[in-house]
Amino acid sequence: MNYTPTIQPPKNSPQLAITRRTRSTPFSSRVEDFGVQAYTIYNHMLLPTRIRGVEEDYFHLRNNVQLWDVSCQRQVELCGPDAARLAQLLTVRDLRKLEIGKCALAPVCDRDGFLLNDPVAIRVAEDRFWFSISDLDILLWAQGIALGMKLDVKIFEPDIWPLAVQGPKAEDVVVAVFGEAARKTKFFRFDTLEFLGHKFLVARSGWSAQGGFEIYVDDAEIGVQLYDALAEAGKQFDIGPGCPNLIERIEAGLMTYGSDITRADTPLEAAMEQYVSLDADIEAIGLDAIRAVAKRGIDRRVCGLTIDGPKVPANRNPWPVKVGGKHIGSVTSAVWSPRLETNVSLGQLAIDYTPVGTKVSVQTPAGEFSAQVSPVPFDGATKK
Amino acid sequence: MNYTPTIQPPKNSPQLAITRRTRSTPFSSRVEDFGVQAYTIYNHMLLPTRIRGVEEDYFHLRNNVQLWDVSCQRQVELCGPDAARLAQLLTVRDLRKLEIGKCALAPVCDRDGFLLNDPVAIRVAEDRFWFSISDLDILLWAQGIALGMKLDVKIFEPDIWPLAVQGPKAEDVVVAVFGEAARKTKFFRFDTLEFLGHKFLVARSGWSAQGGFEIYVDDAEIGVQLYDALAEAGKQFDIGPGCPNLIERIEAGLMTYGSDITRADTPLEAAMEQYVSLDADIEAIGLDAIRAVAKRGIDRRVCGLTIDGPKVPANRNPWPVKVGGKHIGSVTSAVWSPRLETNVSLGQLAIDYTPVGTKVSVQTPAGEFSAQVSPVPFDGATKK
Repeated sequence: MNYTPTIQPPKNSPQLAITRRTRSTPFSSRVEDFGVQAYTIYNHMLLPTRIRGVEEDYFHLRNNVQLWDVSCQRQVELCGPDAARLAQLLTVRDLRKLEIGKCALAPVCDRDGFLLNDPVAIRVAEDRFWFSISDLDILLWAQGIALGMKLDVKIFEPDIWPLAVQGPKAEDVVVAVFGEAARKTKFFRFDTLEFLGHKFLVARSGWSAQGGFEIYVDDAEIGVQLYDALAEAGKQFDIGPGCPNLIERIEAGLMTYGSDITRADTPLEAAMEQYVSLDADIEAIGLDAIRAVAKRGIDRRVCGLTIDGPKVPANRNPWPVKVGGKHIGSVTSAVWSPRLETNVSLGQLAIDYTPVGTKVSVQTPAGEFSAQVSPVPFDGATKK
Repeated sequence: MNYTPTIQPPKNSPQLAITRRTRSTPFSSRVEDFGVQAYTIYNHMLLPTRIRGVEEDYFHLRNNVQLWDVSCQRQVELCGPDAARLAQLLTVRDLRKLEIGKCALAPVCDRDGFLLNDPVAIRVAEDRFWFSISDLDILLWAQGIALGMKLDVKIFEPDIWPLAVQGPKAEDVVVAVFGEAARKTKFFRFDTLEFLGHKFLVARSGWSAQGGFEIYVDDAEIGVQLYDALAEAGKQFDIGPGCPNLIERIEAGLMTYGSDITRADTPLEAAMEQYVSLDADIEAIGLDAIRAVAKRGIDRRVCGLTIDGPKVPANRNPWPVKVGGKHIGSVTSAVWSPRLETNVSLGQLAIDYTPVGTKVSVQTPAGEFSAQVSPVPFDGATKK
């Protein structure tokens, strides 16, 4: 699916053409008023990727608190008599114990066990599920299956624009707006909290290791008022717009579907075995295939690497990883960490080379550099 | 699915963050060496949208010849015993007469008749079809249906990166590289032509009204050699990189899926009735629903409008269209035409207001302007 030679970053910095097709969000005007520097498109929707600068955003996220417009985390809603059956078909994780109020990372696989998505699933009501999806039209996958199997279930993308509050001061800001009740919400659980008389589903979750909440905004107008109230409440902590940060997420070992893991991987190569219910007696697409992979064992696996040398350029294609001239894997996301003073990266290596400390070399567009397999998260990574 | 108030274009011009997930193409380096100004993401892949400037690209396309990196026109390949059955299930157009060598615009609809895609379908062999899709993961739709119905068909995205040659000099350039045989290929037909001993599927098609070819490049390395050979052969016509052009495509009435037509429309509101086989005895998803719509009649329809006043800004959300204060539709794509000296646009209007010449007003981010329904293509549009 990918054309993969190591190519240089573009010499100039092409703009993103914004049209109706690249859907804007209720919060786009706020993000743009602040001066967002870069966007990507994710699930056919704008996702900010750089607000002040990658390194500036990184320190601000670690030290303060940020409002993230992650509207692009689109929900696929299943509701009706066959909703629970379809939800289970869609993921290789046993959902029988997914209670209302819990979040679960629920890998979605194709018939052959290959990853289509790594969404967070929640059960909103007995016969109603949301899959908060990464960048692929799982809506069509679910609808195609339901049509083919004649299931009695309604499947659609509801008007929900998640807004994340992330960073060490996130709890204080959310409590200031939603009240003390928010403090009680446990990690990867959600509660219903009120703002301006509107009930919001609020989860303690988010795509950083700095802690925080994700608010499932289902009313654009009140959502903007909520955004402004959070911004006001966070002034004392220098709150500002933010977004998933390349440095922070690599250090935390958060993999991007489409970059670090793709449809070429089962959840086992993707180091997601804890989310696969290999022994459960469930009807789940791809589970038998993954069982077969588990039985024969995997030959490569996602891991972290520190890369020596100067700051590497942006990683737009997998970079070859070698040992003694032999190609043994690739680096899929890499960036300079100004805190750890080394390049941190995620990639996939042949299984024999995955032990922490293994020395390899990485061929970047800036040249070939020595590298070593690192523990993930990276915080314990040895500085040169 | 869309948040639709009229919002301003961003004050600054955010860059596109390019990563592995926003797949690069075999031709990205060529386009970037030339200095591409803007990209969008389409089917998870880079698509140039502005090379020299929208107006400069427009005149260059009309007068010369351009090489378009439309690798993002991904193919969904169906092959195997049930390929023909699935191909027909996927589109509401009767494919029984789709011979090898013909191209057919084949609307893909959901169960309720709403548009999922407006691909061009070709039959590569008796049991082998390609759908050249617009921006939605039809791959998953087809695979979900096949899985649910237990069809015996292989469905995948082949490594094919279409390269278009568009403009009045396109034929001369393609003939210079592929030989005189290329002249014989009729509109919306394809032939197999050779370059460096490699056989390419070459169709006379493309997303402009200026004429040209689309080459289905299935080998990245020879593809780049082909690109360079076309560039060399076109030097006398000032050939250069190009891309679908906003002005040209609106003037031609070419609708963008996701902007001008969406899943809120059946092919009838989308003015695609000529591609719907209402009377055919075929098994096609959504066809019954469209028959019901045809029976009761549509209440809105895609049409062209010229908008008075100064150059309108980029259109990122539908702009309300009114008559006497009453909301009667929206404009979904708009741009200044330097040749027609008016703003040209596409939108959807309540059916009573669709006759050519109907006067309306459009609320743009720059203010409210008078407008009139125009024939499409726009060339005959009356200048003010």
